[in-house]
Amino acid sequence: MAKVKVLIASGISQEVADMLQDAPSEMEINFLPEGAALSDHISDVEILYGVVSEDALPHAKSLQWVMQPFVGVERSMYPAFKESPITLVNSKRLYGPQLAEHAFALLLALTRGVNTQLELMREKEWKWLPCVEVSGMTMGILGLGGIGRAVAQRAKAFDFNVIALDPEPMEKPDTVDELGQLDWLPEFLSRSEVLTVCCPITPQTHKLLSDAEFDALPEGCFFINVSRGKVVDEDALIAALQSGKLAGAGLDVTYTEPCPPNNPLWTLPNVILTSHTAGASQNIAKRAMQTFLDNMHRYVNGESLINVVDKEKGY
Amino acid sequence: MAKVKVLIASGISQEVADMLQDAPSEMEINFLPEGAALSDHISDVEILYGVVSEDALPHAKSLQWVMQPFVGVERSMYPAFKESPITLVNSKRLYGPQLAEHAFALLLALTRGVNTQLELMREKEWKWLPCVEVSGMTMGILGLGGIGRAVAQRAKAFDFNVIALDPEPMEKPDTVDELGQLDWLPEFLSRSEVLTVCCPITPQTHKLLSDAEFDALPEGCFFINVSRGKVVDEDALIAALQSGKLAGAGLDVTYTEPCPPNNPLWTLPNVILTSHTAGASQNIAKRAMQTFLDNMHRYVNGESLINVVDKEKGY
Repeated sequence: MAKVKVLIASGISQEVADMLQDAPSEMEINFLPEGAALSDHISDVEILYGVVSEDALPHAKSLQWVMQPFVGVERSMYPAFKESPITLVNSKRLYGPQLAEHAFALLLALTRGVNTQLELMREKEWKWLPCVEVSGMTMGILGLGGIGRAVAQRAKAFDFNVIALDPEPMEKPDTVDELGQLDWLPEFLSRSEVLTVCCPITPQTHKLLSDAEFDALPEGCFFINVSRGKVVDEDALIAALQSGKLAGAGLDVTYTEPCPPNNPLWTLPNVILTSHTAGASQNIAKRAMQTFLDNMHRYVNGESLINVVDKEKGY
Repeated sequence: MAKVKVLIASGISQEVADMLQDAPSEMEINFLPEGAALSDHISDVEILYGVVSEDALPHAKSLQWVMQPFVGVERSMYPAFKESPITLVNSKRLYGPQLAEHAFALLLALTRGVNTQLELMREKEWKWLPCVEVSGMTMGILGLGGIGRAVAQRAKAFDFNVIALDPEPMEKPDTVDELGQLDWLPEFLSRSEVLTVCCPITPQTHKLLSDAEFDALPEGCFFINVSRGKVVDEDALIAALQSGKLAGAGLDVTYTEPCPPNNPLWTLPNVILTSHTAGASQNIAKRAMQTFLDNMHRYVNGESLINVVDKEKGY
């Protein structure tokens, strides 16, 4: 019987490659040679680990499904791929721990004055400063997918009152005190003393947070974004920081990345900017490969795949 | 009937002073005038909010109990006070939330590279950096009092394996996976990928962590101290940082405070030093006053006080 051809077209370490020994025996696994064009190696591939670029898609005549070892699907949302029957699997839920850790790193650095204290360290200055205790405050989580749920779990243990908003109907997890849909947005924002953005970028979420939404936030709100910069109208964010409406912003993402040098976010006080590193983790490559392995077994057993992206919704 | 004289000898805001309207009617509450000597105003005082200084103690002829609006009792551990029958009440358990928040601020700033990213911000440099995911790691909590328990609650939600060590026999909280006493110290240390110091300073804990203890830690351990600097032999800590044994240290306390300018902790890479600000919170003064009020009611009702310090143990 002919083997199922699998192509690994995403750089992985030897340790992660070794995990492929647990792939089903029906699979023939090849690696895209370094520097080679995907379009030259994809014609008989049935399963791809990586991304199908637009130029390679016409050559992908046998391709059934693709897994990308990250979450955001922007690179696959070109019309020809969206319209193709190829199934897209992403890494949703796998990034929850480190993204939630990053969100709290940004938030707590602001509330505990770590940024200011690091400045004082340069001068060897020992100086007591007031700090903000978050216990008892309300955190609003915008988007209750894998990342939002990981944030909620931690926020509950920090004794936040946790409120969340998601466009999808879903059961409320125990770690969330109140859950609403999009029509709840104005009230949700007005109660969010900390607002944590955890939603994907889609046509519906593009610049979802603009002047009116920042106006709706309580005075002195902390704003955290570890998902996608394009969810935010950055002029509105900057205005809210400049007016003092926001007490601070912790951002791992910006509208344009890398963040351009003339962007005021680089220099505004009480902004902490990290370089889209929230997904970084010593464990993520193994988690993604394990999901890929699970899906290969499901595929040969005729079961439905996990982590399939709804191409219409874009997540 | 003569009123019970209460003296407030610790600076409090008007908002906190207003809470004293809920004191029992049996109390006559006075405030120590600014700049006045405690020794001149304490002779008929039965209850003090503040600290009895050594010079004032001989004048405190009616004093029954003292509440200090902070935790560490070093300032009251002079022999004459220890030997006196005066009951000492402190603010244990009230500082848990903000100290735990500070401990996580320091830890996550190190694991998520916030310190390095803040350096990059100065140059407007957008640069991806690896980060450490703490989910699944083991956190050792040294001292399972109010602060240690608050840290444990949050660590469990961050999916740490939580181990704790305390000299006292006690029931293991659900948020702690394994709990041991002092004889467990070597194994406890050897398993602590993150070590969080949450214990008071006593003759038993003075320089408890020295060369042998840092040697026992796993390679690449993160070291966090939000309680007392004197629990640590600082030369041993600095050596462990210089050798790379420790991946980083987040310290709100140092052996000598303010931290002297020639202390290498100011300049070692991957050290984050804050200026004993972990107790800072917009809520703490109100929590302490509420405990004082509760104890005043207990006192007039003949009930035993809460938060009483064991003068022998020193906490």
